[in-house]
Amino acid sequence: MNQPTERIEPRTLKGFRDFLPQSMMPREALIETARRVYRSYGFAPIDTPALELAEILTGKGGEETDRQLYRFRDPGDRDVAMRFDLTVPLARFVAQHANELGMPFKRYHIATVWRGESPQEGRYREFMQCDFDTIGSTSIATDIETALVIHDLMRAIGFEQFTIRLNNRKLLNGLLAKVQLPQHAIPVLRAIDKLGKIGVGGVSEELKRTTPAQDDQIRQLLELVSTKPGQDDVLLKMEGLIAGNELGEMGLGELRQVIQGVKAAGAASEKFVIDVSIARGLDYYTGTIYETLLGELPSIGSVCSGGRYDNLAKLFTSQELPGVGASLGLDRMLAAMEKLGKLPQVQTPADVMIVQFDADRLGDYLRLAAQLRAAGIGVELYPDAKKLGAQFKYADRKGFRAVIVAGANEWSQGIVQIKWLADGSQTEVPVGDGATKVIEMLRRSATN
Amino acid sequence: MNQPTERIEPRTLKGFRDFLPQSMMPREALIETARRVYRSYGFAPIDTPALELAEILTGKGGEETDRQLYRFRDPGDRDVAMRFDLTVPLARFVAQHANELGMPFKRYHIATVWRGESPQEGRYREFMQCDFDTIGSTSIATDIETALVIHDLMRAIGFEQFTIRLNNRKLLNGLLAKVQLPQHAIPVLRAIDKLGKIGVGGVSEELKRTTPAQDDQIRQLLELVSTKPGQDDVLLKMEGLIAGNELGEMGLGELRQVIQGVKAAGAASEKFVIDVSIARGLDYYTGTIYETLLGELPSIGSVCSGGRYDNLAKLFTSQELPGVGASLGLDRMLAAMEKLGKLPQVQTPADVMIVQFDADRLGDYLRLAAQLRAAGIGVELYPDAKKLGAQFKYADRKGFRAVIVAGANEWSQGIVQIKWLADGSQTEVPVGDGATKVIEMLRRSATN
Repeated sequence: MNQPTERIEPRTLKGFRDFLPQSMMPREALIETARRVYRSYGFAPIDTPALELAEILTGKGGEETDRQLYRFRDPGDRDVAMRFDLTVPLARFVAQHANELGMPFKRYHIATVWRGESPQEGRYREFMQCDFDTIGSTSIATDIETALVIHDLMRAIGFEQFTIRLNNRKLLNGLLAKVQLPQHAIPVLRAIDKLGKIGVGGVSEELKRTTPAQDDQIRQLLELVSTKPGQDDVLLKMEGLIAGNELGEMGLGELRQVIQGVKAAGAASEKFVIDVSIARGLDYYTGTIYETLLGELPSIGSVCSGGRYDNLAKLFTSQELPGVGASLGLDRMLAAMEKLGKLPQVQTPADVMIVQFDADRLGDYLRLAAQLRAAGIGVELYPDAKKLGAQFKYADRKGFRAVIVAGANEWSQGIVQIKWLADGSQTEVPVGDGATKVIEMLRRSATN
Repeated sequence: MNQPTERIEPRTLKGFRDFLPQSMMPREALIETARRVYRSYGFAPIDTPALELAEILTGKGGEETDRQLYRFRDPGDRDVAMRFDLTVPLARFVAQHANELGMPFKRYHIATVWRGESPQEGRYREFMQCDFDTIGSTSIATDIETALVIHDLMRAIGFEQFTIRLNNRKLLNGLLAKVQLPQHAIPVLRAIDKLGKIGVGGVSEELKRTTPAQDDQIRQLLELVSTKPGQDDVLLKMEGLIAGNELGEMGLGELRQVIQGVKAAGAASEKFVIDVSIARGLDYYTGTIYETLLGELPSIGSVCSGGRYDNLAKLFTSQELPGVGASLGLDRMLAAMEKLGKLPQVQTPADVMIVQFDADRLGDYLRLAAQLRAAGIGVELYPDAKKLGAQFKYADRKGFRAVIVAGANEWSQGIVQIKWLADGSQTEVPVGDGATKVIEMLRRSATN
């Protein structure tokens, strides 16, 4: 018997993951929550292929993006690659279908992307993105709405303590113009982005090293970005700093309108703060910028980020397509929820397990299971009439809320035993009349 | 200005598809229905990587499978490939995590797969599979449950007219043994599979050409497979044909138990028929076989198929893992629903659009939208204060049920106009007190 030597060792590629039920169930629940919130604002789902022509995905992409690509020749010898984000496919999609879609176009896209980068803590080569965007409008209403979607999403996920940090790229650009460093936006933004890690001193050092900024210019920049996040106080301070610079004043005005808008909508407005140190998106975002920190775990970083951009699809069309949107960081959010003990520890989506006590009664078990399901109660029927101990062990491990047991005696008396796994207590319930008493008992206990 | 010459033509790869909202929304709804039904039986979600080591996916796969693979060297020079189904990944997954999973293991897996085959009508190089399986049990209870899941799924999707055709591979094998052609199962099954297309005469010709079957053997085979699908009548006829062959009698017994089981569960038992001409799965399935035909469109073929197998993961482990499961054919089901006019023609998941009549009233629109959303009503706020005509045209095209209009006059009177897009009628509603009257009106009309 030489079969074993032919066996293949079951394993996954480095940086790739299997999701077992206990990790997949919260993922599905989180995705479902995001969908529900996105849909409530009229964002509609789309999907695009995992594989695209490489020239579509690389476009004018930098070297770094190229290195991360899973790129190869397909069986038809085409130069193809797996998508590394959902933004480039969105640009291609909107350019290709603009006439059919019409503007404004609001879409969400929840899908897998791939990057061949080095796997590290919390970074994978395959992960899911949960994006929503409004294309084709420059109205501040869409900036406000993006903030509101993030707000509703955090609450729908179950967070009450979070901060949505807002910034506006125009404000930064305005100040750079005002301190006469307009050509050095990228190195300045890179330095500012490190404020949390290297502090004011470190940023100052880096600015000296990477830009021609003089002490006075650096002082003004640091005064801006070290402003404590807030609302009216920040707006007031910025007014002074930016006065006379048109672009900066425009950015400030937009931030003011976003704050006013979320207040008008009745959102928990104390959760929105202006933080002029956010420098994400660098050369991509052109207006409002969004980051979201969890009050109980700010160190994990932003769990939902985004911003406004001027021209989504310039690689593919002459049509100017401005837009604004954000993306839920699914893996980071799940990691945070796990650390905060907010993930349920169950391995089954069903509420109840029916023990198969007596194989001769299979028809009775099947009928009872069907009756409970028709009432909206998820039921697993244990497939084999194994020993009770083995069936209960299985039920405990999977995390059912209740187990229903009935042998020949119980069936002849028209009753079943419901055993509550949380405390081991047991209830005897009559099973006649479409199992209405059983359904009632299970429903009542579910709401406790 | 030479920018246009640098533009990239936006296009998708041959055999790949973009899903616009009007096609993505029914896809999502169908997937959601499948999830709900699978979960109600205790099937739990899993996911596996899109990319696997090629040796995992090819295993002992035939040449045909190899040709269809998207296979390449990854950036780390590993021989990798994109998954072409969800069964091989399931086998690898169960072998790798057997201890952690425990048996029985019930999972569903709804995910994309890729095959480089020639695209043709209704065939794509990227498509989604919706599988559910029970691993680790040989109990007939799991065969019955598989039939019940298909039954519940069809009804949940909205079909009342469908037939779940059952067969059992043991019955066929038993007959082959009885007519002394046990070594010729594959060519016999291939011929039988063409019965619908080439008729009894054609099958007879093919059997003569591809097997050593004599006229009498062929006559017996044809008598079996040309039996009209049914329940008790078929069981009776088969009893006569198979009498004395142990394997065939076992298969017949299993079919009888499945029919009894679905009756006991209270399912619409007339929808289950035994059809001994089903020859799908060929060398893969070993017991019960399932196919599902739509009463209104049988010509589209089976929309949900599956079967029982003896040993899922023999490539990866010495542990014997029997199982049974089936798969919803998502693309085929959607094509059928479209042909039957069962797909809604909307492009938005929101129920209502609020017209932005007056940009100065943005705060009021935002508040009203938030109030409706808090009541569970999906709302899109038109982002720009464009002309009414443009906003209404947009609303018509997207398929909102109602549009809410309020200008400065209305707001000062504390009212809004609800315009019902189905008939163009209009209702004036007071908007005070958290918009309760508006909510009530929209809810009432939704249930009409």
